[in-house]
Amino acid sequence: MQQMVNKDPWRAAVLGATGYTGQELVALLARHPRIRATFVSSESEAGQPVPGNGLRYVKAEEVPLGEVDVVFTCLPHGEAGGWALKARNAGARVVDLSADLRDGAHGAVYGLTELWRADVRDAELVANPGCYPTGILLALRPLIEAGLLDGTRPVLIDAASGVTGAGRTAKRDLLFAEVAEDYRAYGVGNTHRHVPEIARGLGSTAAGAVPFVFTPHLLPVRRGILETMYVPVAGGARAADVVSHWNEVYGGEPFVEVWREGLPSLRTTVSRNAVALGASEIGGVDSMVLVVASFDNLVKGAAGQALQNANLMLGLCEHEGLPR
Amino acid sequence: MQQMVNKDPWRAAVLGATGYTGQELVALLARHPRIRATFVSSESEAGQPVPGNGLRYVKAEEVPLGEVDVVFTCLPHGEAGGWALKARNAGARVVDLSADLRDGAHGAVYGLTELWRADVRDAELVANPGCYPTGILLALRPLIEAGLLDGTRPVLIDAASGVTGAGRTAKRDLLFAEVAEDYRAYGVGNTHRHVPEIARGLGSTAAGAVPFVFTPHLLPVRRGILETMYVPVAGGARAADVVSHWNEVYGGEPFVEVWREGLPSLRTTVSRNAVALGASEIGGVDSMVLVVASFDNLVKGAAGQALQNANLMLGLCEHEGLPR
Amino acid sequence: MQQMVNKDPWRAAVLGATGYTGQELVALLARHPRIRATFVSSESEAGQPVPGNGLRYVKAEEVPLGEVDVVFTCLPHGEAGGWALKARNAGARVVDLSADLRDGAHGAVYGLTELWRADVRDAELVANPGCYPTGILLALRPLIEAGLLDGTRPVLIDAASGVTGAGRTAKRDLLFAEVAEDYRAYGVGNTHRHVPEIARGLGSTAAGAVPFVFTPHLLPVRRGILETMYVPVAGGARAADVVSHWNEVYGGEPFVEVWREGLPSLRTTVSRNAVALGASEIGGVDSMVLVVASFDNLVKGAAGQALQNANLMLGLCEHEGLPR
Amino acid sequence: MQQMVNKDPWRAAVLGATGYTGQELVALLARHPRIRATFVSSESEAGQPVPGNGLRYVKAEEVPLGEVDVVFTCLPHGEAGGWALKARNAGARVVDLSADLRDGAHGAVYGLTELWRADVRDAELVANPGCYPTGILLALRPLIEAGLLDGTRPVLIDAASGVTGAGRTAKRDLLFAEVAEDYRAYGVGNTHRHVPEIARGLGSTAAGAVPFVFTPHLLPVRRGILETMYVPVAGGARAADVVSHWNEVYGGEPFVEVWREGLPSLRTTVSRNAVALGASEIGGVDSMVLVVASFDNLVKGAAGQALQNANLMLGLCEHEGLPR
Repeated sequence: MQQMVNKDPWRAAVLGATGYTGQELVALLARHPRIRATFVSSESEAGQPVPGNGLRYVKAEEVPLGEVDVVFTCLPHGEAGGWALKARNAGARVVDLSADLRDGAHGAVYGLTELWRADVRDAELVANPGCYPTGILLALRPLIEAGLLDGTRPVLIDAASGVTGAGRTAKRDLLFAEVAEDYRAYGVGNTHRHVPEIARGLGSTAAGAVPFVFTPHLLPVRRGILETMYVPVAGGARAADVVSHWNEVYGGEPFVEVWREGLPSLRTTVSRNAVALGASEIGGVDSMVLVVASFDNLVKGAAGQALQNANLMLGLCEHEGLPR
Repeated sequence: MQQMVNKDPWRAAVLGATGYTGQELVALLARHPRIRATFVSSESEAGQPVPGNGLRYVKAEEVPLGEVDVVFTCLPHGEAGGWALKARNAGARVVDLSADLRDGAHGAVYGLTELWRADVRDAELVANPGCYPTGILLALRPLIEAGLLDGTRPVLIDAASGVTGAGRTAKRDLLFAEVAEDYRAYGVGNTHRHVPEIARGLGSTAAGAVPFVFTPHLLPVRRGILETMYVPVAGGARAADVVSHWNEVYGGEPFVEVWREGLPSLRTTVSRNAVALGASEIGGVDSMVLVVASFDNLVKGAAGQALQNANLMLGLCEHEGLPR
Repeated sequence: MQQMVNKDPWRAAVLGATGYTGQELVALLARHPRIRATFVSSESEAGQPVPGNGLRYVKAEEVPLGEVDVVFTCLPHGEAGGWALKARNAGARVVDLSADLRDGAHGAVYGLTELWRADVRDAELVANPGCYPTGILLALRPLIEAGLLDGTRPVLIDAASGVTGAGRTAKRDLLFAEVAEDYRAYGVGNTHRHVPEIARGLGSTAAGAVPFVFTPHLLPVRRGILETMYVPVAGGARAADVVSHWNEVYGGEPFVEVWREGLPSLRTTVSRNAVALGASEIGGVDSMVLVVASFDNLVKGAAGQALQNANLMLGLCEHEGLPR
Repeated sequence: MQQMVNKDPWRAAVLGATGYTGQELVALLARHPRIRATFVSSESEAGQPVPGNGLRYVKAEEVPLGEVDVVFTCLPHGEAGGWALKARNAGARVVDLSADLRDGAHGAVYGLTELWRADVRDAELVANPGCYPTGILLALRPLIEAGLLDGTRPVLIDAASGVTGAGRTAKRDLLFAEVAEDYRAYGVGNTHRHVPEIARGLGSTAAGAVPFVFTPHLLPVRRGILETMYVPVAGGARAADVVSHWNEVYGGEPFVEVWREGLPSLRTTVSRNAVALGASEIGGVDSMVLVVASFDNLVKGAAGQALQNANLMLGLCEHEGLPR
């Protein structure tokens, strides 16, 4: 497990590489100096060349899971978890990008890197967080732990995501002619798949459960998430206190950007492995602060964070191969 | 003032007709059976033909305000109000589409038609509502008046608008290459120009002032507004109660569409003079209902509602010339 | 077949009404003063309400074809033709919007209204033209017939279409995240399905076959077609001659707009039943004129023209129910 | 002027860094291992921090032109040329990204790298090519030189560009609400500013002047150019001959990608310093081949190529700091 100087690159397999997340991960690995994708799977494209490197797609079952150092499972929810365990049993370290193991099943460590770094470093099986929860938890958990959030009133989280967040399977609802010039809420009323994950993340502090309402919307853009959060604050805290606490917590973090003033827009973080956080006062309403998180659903919300976790698991610098 | 059978069409002037609102109004008037645009002003296009009818643009000062029956002022805020008064003094009925008179200055009647219909009918000077307030007030005022809204907690209003809402003046922030693939909050923390208008509209019931937070966002679409509202409800009211009360209040209204189930998306109302309203339960949070309003910022949010008001002021059927 | 004053509206059936063309046709019929949709079919939505009128979708086989006056077949290519003949046999007039009968099979009349109006008026079975050919033939046939086009050199037709032209079936290539921020040629090298239709239309004049190259592109917009044509001209003809000849031919046409100067952009015709035509000189190249046609693929390129044809077949004014 | 091992990075100034081209160049330099931006100018943002590095914008006149190794002038046409000469006189190597010196004025070398590499390597003043000409010349010049192009008939070049190509100055025509859902030709009839540059590039071979028609269109996308060219070929040449000749000429080039089959779409090259070229037969037309070029107007069409040239001028590897 120790890493030598001048060691050959670590070998990685990407299972399910023709979805948006898998494509992004393969592209990131192509520029990674220390990890090389050696097997890339796609059931539908098996035999075809992988754009941007010399490989050809193989079927998942053809990947020799025991011969790679790390396996990334980008397969559909319900399917990925099984492959993750299979890869784990074959001896590979595993980052599962699906929702299957995010409840900690089979000992998987929840890989929101900045918040559970030590656990990830020691893990052999990591459940990579969902896109929406990544921004929400990075913004809110430090506030909860510092007692800045008033957990008696619900946090309202109004979020908007680009269409790649919905995957690359052909569905009528996601056709260009359906999505362009439209904007719509979906999975409303706390029914979205990410709600239990958010609940676990917000609730697992000493402060206990935190009530929240989560409303995702579909934006007519390709990528990026913007989360506008209405945060009930405790003890007269103000936006400046929120910003200052984030600065303290995330001071040394390469991938969390705290805005001293103004609020990040969606595009400020697109194609980068970063979450940008900003806060604002609300005129006439004292006990609430407006918080905005911006990040790329495919990078910090998926493939970039997966690579961040893999770097840790392999003993590499956390930011190797990650565009800044 | 009485209208005769077979009377000649009423004559209208549109001041400031090359902005998005003015263009929309001219297009609507072109299909109106009883009102005809006879003067259309534009400082920058004076002398050029008006698309879609036989007129040419004139400068505002060249419009004989005393020779038309109704004047629509679509000029910039700060400028429109003065022209509205001038037109009123010249004897014309006036619908001012700017923010200048929405506080009731100079006796202007606030023209949110469904809520103040009787006042509009008798008015000679109407201040047409702002786009954002139109959906908010149509959704919330009936709930306040019926005691369904708990005014001790703030209503949170997270809104998103297409770019035509920001006007047609060339600004770097509104260039295609700046707006496309982006999404951003602006005028946050209750600093947007519409906040006082919303406050007046929500606060002028027997229930008194209602606290709220209003956060507009800029969407990469041309037109349409979607408002997602988190409404604190009183006395255990549920989404079904909200829908049922709207149905009672708006049962006969041609331009308010209450959805029995599901929530309207932005595009369901584009290019139509309609506000669509929907409500949803929120899992795990009892004392709050999610409300969504969808409407076209240029039609029900501006030119369509202006025409609706003008129809009333001239004694015509309220829906004449309005696409349904 | 004669039409009485105050006659009840003609009854229409729309088969395949949940595709983009069918939706557009149902919307147009909803505002038609003399034709009423009485049956609207959809296999997938059978039993559901049709938006915007009081009907419910039925399956195609449930439509009593003998009880309606006109049937519009908006079904997929390969399927529509059979239903068109079935409807014809049941006694209905038929407008088939598919490609199945455009070669004149089964006596179908090619329904490019402005060019074959007399034939359409007498027809009981009309094959509605493809979207791309509509603009190409309206622009070029008059030039061929007047000897303005030099048929020894190929006409180059570079066309771009919005995504609704590709239909509403879920395909990965048409997902928002695939189409947005992209632009691509497809069906290149005269392999597109519309090539034989264009060849017939250009070749069936006294002048005989006209060589051409047709290259369609997919635009990241919802609707509209812009065709940029490089037209080899004969006898020193210039752009002004082209414009002047169009003016002569199309002078009284309500749905062909000849631009005296400038060139129409795509959006100038969106949502209207119109083709706009413009021409420009080319500096340094004498024997060629640049021609641009703009029209809405769903209206003049499909549903609007179908209604124009049905109006003629039923003895109504050609422009009844068509937005201008 | 010789470069030492372990030499400090070369120092660069970017004049006019808040336009789209300047922004892109600053972003590329931030990741360049051997050139560092040490002065970045903007008249409007002077004093503000430059995103993504530690500098602040200064006014152009405050840049000590004699203290940097290379100056990039990204100022408006008409203004940039003067600054380029000033910088040259101060002793810096200069890459001018405007159109001012592309005719070779003041001894400027035309910096289409792959075609004039030796000249660039020795140059101290380079005129970086316009975006449209870059793809056209890379596609066509080798064909002309090999006698594959029949220069008696015009090449037709139908091009489409994303909106960043039009610059970042606020203009009504470039507002989101004007460009979205539209598509339009502009600068038609060989009147576009790039026509003389294309004429020089195509005409300066042994074969002499080559007639052509150039029609640019404005696409509703942020970045990228797709050029569809109808190329009259000589001596029975076919698409395969074109592809095979490109392969010969560009075999070792890192930034020209020849497609063996299929045609590149716009997005295949976005954000990369690359031109992709493809060719197709045209059914029924023998003496013509369809050629498509795809590249990012801001990278290979501007800032990337500028850096490619600067690398050569400084004796660095041509691909240093350029994403592949």
